[in-house]
Amino acid sequence: MGSVVALAGQVGGAKLADGLYRLRGKDLSVIVNTGDDYQHLGLAFSPDLDTVLYVLAGIANPAAAWEPEHETRAAHAMLKKLGGPDRPALGDRSLATALLRTQGLAHEHRLTEVTLDFCRALGVQARILPMSDDPVRTHVLTDGGAVSFHEYFTELGCEPPARGLQFAGAADARISDEVLEALHADDLEAVVICPSNPFHVIRPILEVAGMRELLRSRGVPVVAVTPIVGGKALKGSAGKMMSELGREPSARGAASEYLRLIDGFVIDRQDFALADSVRSLGMEVAVSQTVMRSPDERVALARATLDFARSIREKKAAEVE
Amino acid sequence: MGSVVALAGQVGGAKLADGLYRLRGKDLSVIVNTGDDYQHLGLAFSPDLDTVLYVLAGIANPAAAWEPEHETRAAHAMLKKLGGPDRPALGDRSLATALLRTQGLAHEHRLTEVTLDFCRALGVQARILPMSDDPVRTHVLTDGGAVSFHEYFTELGCEPPARGLQFAGAADARISDEVLEALHADDLEAVVICPSNPFHVIRPILEVAGMRELLRSRGVPVVAVTPIVGGKALKGSAGKMMSELGREPSARGAASEYLRLIDGFVIDRQDFALADSVRSLGMEVAVSQTVMRSPDERVALARATLDFARSIREKKAAEVE
Repeated sequence: MGSVVALAGQVGGAKLADGLYRLRGKDLSVIVNTGDDYQHLGLAFSPDLDTVLYVLAGIANPAAAWEPEHETRAAHAMLKKLGGPDRPALGDRSLATALLRTQGLAHEHRLTEVTLDFCRALGVQARILPMSDDPVRTHVLTDGGAVSFHEYFTELGCEPPARGLQFAGAADARISDEVLEALHADDLEAVVICPSNPFHVIRPILEVAGMRELLRSRGVPVVAVTPIVGGKALKGSAGKMMSELGREPSARGAASEYLRLIDGFVIDRQDFALADSVRSLGMEVAVSQTVMRSPDERVALARATLDFARSIREKKAAEVE
Repeated sequence: MGSVVALAGQVGGAKLADGLYRLRGKDLSVIVNTGDDYQHLGLAFSPDLDTVLYVLAGIANPAAAWEPEHETRAAHAMLKKLGGPDRPALGDRSLATALLRTQGLAHEHRLTEVTLDFCRALGVQARILPMSDDPVRTHVLTDGGAVSFHEYFTELGCEPPARGLQFAGAADARISDEVLEALHADDLEAVVICPSNPFHVIRPILEVAGMRELLRSRGVPVVAVTPIVGGKALKGSAGKMMSELGREPSARGAASEYLRLIDGFVIDRQDFALADSVRSLGMEVAVSQTVMRSPDERVALARATLDFARSIREKKAAEVE
């Protein structure tokens, strides 16, 4: 068995990354969106990195995987008492992660190094890799102007219709050595795009200068798993955002976001009727249960996705012969 | 009744400051030592300011007044889990105070402004004032070299004999407008040096350029309350430090630290036999219960101290006539 690279962010993406991790351990690298990163109270918060970290470390809050289990808010209560900001409601454990990250960055460590240190400390053998060590900031264009994704999410509650997205810094962001190494591994067998919001989780990763080309250049199958089931996003704002951006809020619409990038797309069993329509976009299609309610279901979807990638690889190999 | 200025730090000092606050409310200003301030994880910690703040706000942990009541250590546990430093054991609420202070300073607010904001937020009507907005750092000279007081306290457990103290920055530190205003108040009736360690709490305050002269210049009584009872410091390291520095670890020894500064010294009832000996240093002496086990005892000692100051003022006035 070879190595696998996953692209992920948010809870749904982290769950599939966890399934892949349970199958592949140290042979998994997860490239994670940092476009939603933000500064608050002088501290560096990386919501998607933390979500993937907590989930793979097995310490995520089952109800809110972007924070560690047993999260408390004592520091936040004190902050408010002292006249500090009352939003976002910081968790004590999440604060520790941000504090240590900020400290690492202040000491000239790269975000990748800080993140890999966290992996080691938490016993995560997979490599969780920021998409870049350079800052990229996702902005949502609304009728009221451009706002950072963080503001859109926490201050505006994802209410205003999204008219577009911008990824400030992406064109100048460099792909880190660690990401290059993962994608150039001799034994790389598949790239998996996890079921995350295609617009503000996966797009920023793809917008990093050279990333699309790099993903295609290896010739290994690139497969994506749908974030949309039965016309709705399981978590988060993907469905709403798709409609607002003039996309069809369906598995087919999601697949079309990855045109010319992916070889195959995994749709949910509920959407089996869409298989031919997605296939007509010029990609292979697999039908699977994509809703992951348990660790076993994460592993099952990961296995189905890797089997799908292998079948694509074998088909390609047969075509070459 | 006029206004009162207290010099304080540490738990014992904060208790008397609280007694004075309960008597005088907004007419109290407390000048607090910042020589023990330190940076940890990029955050600005001010142990003495926080102790006085928590005690006057009525939210201090009764067992460890330098932190807020109901303190928890969730962030600290997470920090350790992530490979961060395991000392000092940060409290979540204490962390919030340091975080907001750091943020205020980063936005060009002065430490005094940040501290007064905290007072307002916590409903403390007295003015808690850092001795200066400029950094002063107390170093303890040990046989192994000079160490910051913070390191001496947390890393070395106050173990190595203290051979001397240095107050880096004190000569260049400016007295803030707020401290000047408090000491120049028309209705100022007394300056009270609270029962804190004379070496690393009160001395740094006095070492701020011009502070001694300013305290004397108003002509109001300056009275100190002994931090040593029956040859021992009630809390902290005053007694040990006095011996190491070649001082007599007694109320008389403590009084002699304030020679040419104070008009009167309050000793404990246990030490009544030392009254004449302290008087022979050239100061008035009052005997009182200085151990404060309850809020009532804080108020009683505050009242006794202010009464003592008034008697000195009246005596001076009579001498002038």
